[in-house]
Amino acid sequence: MSTLVKKCNSVVPDIIARAAQKEGIDGKELALAIAKGKAVVPANPAREHDPIAIGEGCTVKVNVNIGTSGARCDPEYEYNKAACAIAEGADAIMDLSTGGDLKEIRKKILTLNATTGTVPIYEAVKRAGNALDVTPDLLFSIIREHCKEGVDFLTLHCGVNKESYESLRKDPRVTGVVSRGGAFHTAIIATTGEENPLYSEYDYLLEILAENETIISLGDGMRPGAVIDAGRRAKSTEYLTLGDLSQRALEAGVQRIIEGPGHIPIDQIDYNVRFIKEVTGNAPLYLLGPLVTDIFPGYDHVSGAIGGSIAAMSGADFLCMVSPSEHLALPDIDDIREGTRVAKLAAHVGDRGRKGDKWFDKGETGMAFARRNLDWNAQFSHAVYGDYARSIHDRDGETETCSMCGDLCAIKILKECLENRN
Amino acid sequence: MSTLVKKCNSVVPDIIARAAQKEGIDGKELALAIAKGKAVVPANPAREHDPIAIGEGCTVKVNVNIGTSGARCDPEYEYNKAACAIAEGADAIMDLSTGGDLKEIRKKILTLNATTGTVPIYEAVKRAGNALDVTPDLLFSIIREHCKEGVDFLTLHCGVNKESYESLRKDPRVTGVVSRGGAFHTAIIATTGEENPLYSEYDYLLEILAENETIISLGDGMRPGAVIDAGRRAKSTEYLTLGDLSQRALEAGVQRIIEGPGHIPIDQIDYNVRFIKEVTGNAPLYLLGPLVTDIFPGYDHVSGAIGGSIAAMSGADFLCMVSPSEHLALPDIDDIREGTRVAKLAAHVGDRGRKGDKWFDKGETGMAFARRNLDWNAQFSHAVYGDYARSIHDRDGETETCSMCGDLCAIKILKECLENRN
Repeated sequence: MSTLVKKCNSVVPDIIARAAQKEGIDGKELALAIAKGKAVVPANPAREHDPIAIGEGCTVKVNVNIGTSGARCDPEYEYNKAACAIAEGADAIMDLSTGGDLKEIRKKILTLNATTGTVPIYEAVKRAGNALDVTPDLLFSIIREHCKEGVDFLTLHCGVNKESYESLRKDPRVTGVVSRGGAFHTAIIATTGEENPLYSEYDYLLEILAENETIISLGDGMRPGAVIDAGRRAKSTEYLTLGDLSQRALEAGVQRIIEGPGHIPIDQIDYNVRFIKEVTGNAPLYLLGPLVTDIFPGYDHVSGAIGGSIAAMSGADFLCMVSPSEHLALPDIDDIREGTRVAKLAAHVGDRGRKGDKWFDKGETGMAFARRNLDWNAQFSHAVYGDYARSIHDRDGETETCSMCGDLCAIKILKECLENRN
Repeated sequence: MSTLVKKCNSVVPDIIARAAQKEGIDGKELALAIAKGKAVVPANPAREHDPIAIGEGCTVKVNVNIGTSGARCDPEYEYNKAACAIAEGADAIMDLSTGGDLKEIRKKILTLNATTGTVPIYEAVKRAGNALDVTPDLLFSIIREHCKEGVDFLTLHCGVNKESYESLRKDPRVTGVVSRGGAFHTAIIATTGEENPLYSEYDYLLEILAENETIISLGDGMRPGAVIDAGRRAKSTEYLTLGDLSQRALEAGVQRIIEGPGHIPIDQIDYNVRFIKEVTGNAPLYLLGPLVTDIFPGYDHVSGAIGGSIAAMSGADFLCMVSPSEHLALPDIDDIREGTRVAKLAAHVGDRGRKGDKWFDKGETGMAFARRNLDWNAQFSHAVYGDYARSIHDRDGETETCSMCGDLCAIKILKECLENRN
């Protein structure tokens, strides 16, 4: 059992107190939520950074994926992307690098003050040269390395097993498997017939993670890759398995997150989120998207913001940023900036479900008064991306009203009319 | 009674047949929906353009606002903005010009092949020089002029009356009145104590509209201007009035649209839409936004896409594009392009609620197969903005996979693995 989780049953460990303070919630409540597996604080003790809390009682968080690929590999550029995401408000970073010296890239990313995750199977495949040559020993030794280096949460596709593969075969999908990690494990199962070691040796995996105070993010390797595939069985089979694995992690005192879809039509988001939350014992839920349409490539960040805000309203805790270049190219810095901002917007909107009318305190009230008063400086200071807003406003000069209505500003008209009456 | 509406009770007028064909629905059904006031086809016979249908049984439509202001006034540029919006898929254009020669600008916009709306009170105020100097005669004569020129739908704030103003006074809002038209009428009521002529002489107004086969868009001058104001009474008082006016328009055989908010927290959208639909006899509902947060200026197009897609799922029929420069500046062409694309995305996502699984036919299935086959040309052809998507993909060269995953493409991995098995 993780020492941190054990402590949470009786005291408020310092790292939890710090995360709770940042959240504006009670440390004891957060510690209890962690002990019950309803919240997590990913904080690998091998490294120092400001901790964040994810889950029950906490605001919705945003993760931003960065990382090289075989086609584009400049470690310095990826580092700058991560730094940009953090500057724009990302709560966590995942390094999904698959090209270049992965250890060096990771080392550099881990110098940033941010909760950081990785996907060890990527490095395993790269080192082995091929998914089929990844041995359980290699995979577990890489997992251990990531833990020792201070990675806070690891995506591990433990639910891609013979059963979910069988479910996929019986009820096939147009896009098959689109999770990269999921595809590696599926390829091994399909070719060798051998069970996924992350599933068959799950207890051993939990031991490694507990020992290193590292969080498991139970990957959804069977997530649908198109809205048209959302209703097929494989994902639900995998979620039932993830439910078992979630319970076993809780019993082993290992903090865990559940990863969720993917591509889901807008009217199916609510029940999917509630279903996953139910079968996993209300573990913190980490979503990629969900994307609500596939025919707007170039605008998947907006598609993901629609899905993400609805999912967060239904209970999702952690949104993975989708960039404008999703499905098209490795994101550049502009994609990361735009994607992060839009994901932060979705997370804030989703917070409405958690905060009720207290949500209005989060800048919304201040903005309403600033607008009523035509106080532009106050508007920019209440704006989450105020400098950007100012740059749009100022392109037509600095005036009392904005160029949208000019002198025919509704607020100005009524203000003057009421002043003239007095 | 409008000749078109009268005909709809017995036959399928040619213009209705054309709109139905574009929609892929039965002409008789559409004619019946129009006769019952559940759908509209805005098509002023004074001008020729391809008609669109809005409301029951139809896909969700997108309007794009363009128009000069006192601060920025280049008629040619506004025309280009309108042309850009139409090229990007806008279903209708509203000319909200308040600066320059309004008649000339309108004339130019009306040469475009698009359903077009205006807000006559703007011109009335501009001609009178001041809202308080607008006489009923001036306002009605301008309305008549717009009808004669071929404008298809007119936003008229008939619900801003003494009662809704009293409701606003009793339950004040931080941002007061933010509708420009609403502010003009409120200023007159507040200063002179006289009733809004659009309300007191509503029957006369309906006669003008029926005579000219022009649609009334019942403006929501009391829409909230901030999410924090969404729960205040004025808007609901106005909707009850709009419900009466909606019924009277139906009885007078005048096609009508109801305009809706505005700024609404995400969890309040569904019941607002259903409430408005209920009290207005399921008249076609035209929404601005709704914006679900106020603290992301520069990203109001995304805020509006979240609100708009949810509202459309709940029954809204017609979405007004919100541009990235909303609340900051008059939109430029880039804002119009970005805003229109994002609004089209929201409308498509909202269509899911109308189409059920038939929605998958709208390119979604084709895209899933194109992705499965790594067929980039097919992906770009199924994409709504395919050239833009291609430009993102091609920035890293034209390859079988994309630069996001490079050779470690999940789809490619499984494809090769399964091919090797055979």
